[in-house]
Amino acid sequence: MKRPWQGQVEPPLLTTVPRHDPHNPLCPGATRANGEVNPHYEGTFLFDNDFPALQPDAPSPGPSDHPLFQAEAARGVCKVMCFHPWSDVTLPLMLVPEIRAVIDAWASVTEELGAQYPWVQIFENKGAMMGCSNPHPHCQVWASSFLPDVAQREERSQRAYQSQHGEPLLMEYGRQELLRKDRLVLTSEHWLVLVPFWAVWPFQTLLLPRRHVRRLPELTPAERDDLASIMKKLLTKYDNLFETSFPYSMGWHGAPMGSEAGANWDHWQLHAHYYPPLLRSATVRKFMVGYEMLAQAQRDLTPEQAAERLRALPEVHYRLGQK
Amino acid sequence: MKRPWQGQVEPPLLTTVPRHDPHNPLCPGATRANGEVNPHYEGTFLFDNDFPALQPDAPSPGPSDHPLFQAEAARGVCKVMCFHPWSDVTLPLMLVPEIRAVIDAWASVTEELGAQYPWVQIFENKGAMMGCSNPHPHCQVWASSFLPDVAQREERSQRAYQSQHGEPLLMEYGRQELLRKDRLVLTSEHWLVLVPFWAVWPFQTLLLPRRHVRRLPELTPAERDDLASIMKKLLTKYDNLFETSFPYSMGWHGAPMGSEAGANWDHWQLHAHYYPPLLRSATVRKFMVGYEMLAQAQRDLTPEQAAERLRALPEVHYRLGQK
Ligand SMILES: O=P(O)(O)O[C@H]1O[C@H](CO)[C@@H](O)[C@H](O)[C@H]1O
Ligand SMILES: O=P(O)(O)O[C@H]1O[C@H](CO)[C@@H](O)[C@H](O)[C@H]1O
Repeated sequence: MKRPWQGQVEPPLLTTVPRHDPHNPLCPGATRANGEVNPHYEGTFLFDNDFPALQPDAPSPGPSDHPLFQAEAARGVCKVMCFHPWSDVTLPLMLVPEIRAVIDAWASVTEELGAQYPWVQIFENKGAMMGCSNPHPHCQVWASSFLPDVAQREERSQRAYQSQHGEPLLMEYGRQELLRKDRLVLTSEHWLVLVPFWAVWPFQTLLLPRRHVRRLPELTPAERDDLASIMKKLLTKYDNLFETSFPYSMGWHGAPMGSEAGANWDHWQLHAHYYPPLLRSATVRKFMVGYEMLAQAQRDLTPEQAAERLRALPEVHYRLGQK
Repeated sequence: MKRPWQGQVEPPLLTTVPRHDPHNPLCPGATRANGEVNPHYEGTFLFDNDFPALQPDAPSPGPSDHPLFQAEAARGVCKVMCFHPWSDVTLPLMLVPEIRAVIDAWASVTEELGAQYPWVQIFENKGAMMGCSNPHPHCQVWASSFLPDVAQREERSQRAYQSQHGEPLLMEYGRQELLRKDRLVLTSEHWLVLVPFWAVWPFQTLLLPRRHVRRLPELTPAERDDLASIMKKLLTKYDNLFETSFPYSMGWHGAPMGSEAGANWDHWQLHAHYYPPLLRSATVRKFMVGYEMLAQAQRDLTPEQAAERLRALPEVHYRLGQK
């Protein structure tokens, strides 16, 4: 953390995003790349990504002729979900009932796409620094015909832990963190937020339900309301840390679905990962480069230091407090 | 590749780095953070990183009280190697004999630190976009008391392939790519450069010796001269791709060393990975974010398309051609 920094400084954020821009394809009433016109939506709005990375009818690469050259078809669908009709808000600036509507939409799309696909990845890239190509508040949903790499690793670890210890890994993990306390950021009736023991990003967090819940659609109305409220608190702390609209990538992981949804997935515990890049200020980020790419991730501050800093931050947004 | 881009555009590169800046701690004659004065070096210059991430005497975290909370001491040393006394050059702008001197210095530092440590990671973060905190041409060398994650995975894969097929994985892989041709970028008497079948970064490459070589110090003088020349060609193509000083992280992987250097490591083949972030232009990069962090890497162009574009580029640097 003491290293001199002559490296990249992030460009200042767009401070003024217009509330409505008829040329922004995510806005209500705008015309998208495929010619469709968006409805004048008032809450969330889900539609097919006009530039999908996964397609339902992707061709098969055919049989391989060599053990080192193995390829398989990757099929799926990509959707975009707008969180709000306005371009100039973000989740921490939205009302708790508006965030609750996003959670309900996440649960529905998981159910809908999970009927056909084994993995439904909901993720939000927030901020230009995280490759987000449009400032309107939104997330993406990519459903695939296969378990992606990270899902496979989580499946293996959780299955192995359950078979060895007789309970879900993340249930025991959450319980331990509640006892140890030094990595906790927020707790509520139904949820925990903590900087995980294994965190690699400076202010990475894990969001966990207290109850054993395998997938988003299983959440009760009370758990959803409580989730909306703890998300607002976490994201407010994030924004307050460097008094900026805090960039991150986040996403949900839950038990696989599709044709094997009915199998025993009790070793899975629903959770969300938040991966934010900022390290020292609104313009100096952590770079996962040389040593990290070629050898192993390394941190610039401990998870306990990060948790302590996040705990100490106010739960009122710096932009709302000023009013 | 057709997606509209309203996202982050990288700040333009520093176009004028002064050849010598007495306040830059990497320059000859400059005073470093610890008070030492650099010699007036004329070739490469190796010194201890003043802000080391690994230290030889790191304390042990003590025994763990729980299977989910396992920690181990990470010991090692971090060095910095300047490639050249001037701040305003990069490897592709250096002369072949100057690059050869860098290769010799890489081989020596591997031998020196490998006498004590099982893993010696040489890596270069080039460009501010890749977290490089100083524009002076340099790389880093981090030696560790343990095999880092990526080294462990390469050890497992190469060992498994050798025991199943009776020859080193990367020897067979290189031979196959020479036959298939569509992912080759450059070939020389002793070396191959290709966009690997498994590439995730748009213009990622793998640099492989043709002969079975386990570690840098084993390279013959002829192989080192040829390496200097193929590196200059590859890095010139990279700079020519978007007419910019092409950012990347690169590093060398070879057989483990330290106290077990004498064991059988014949399944290892020396190689270098180049991970460059640029995708569409000098200012629009690939972001490894949401889906990539939470699910699986996905590419925006095929390895064959990337190799074809790199093959077609001239081997004379755009800045030297203009003269
Ligand atoms: O050592 P530097 O150049 O200050 O730091 C750079 O390389 C390190 C090793 O890859 C990274 O951990 C840092 O995030 C990066 O900024
Ligand atoms: O889909 P977008 O917002 O155009 O693209 C963004 O998210 C994708 C999924 O994480 C990444 O592959 C892209 O690199 C990133 O820019």
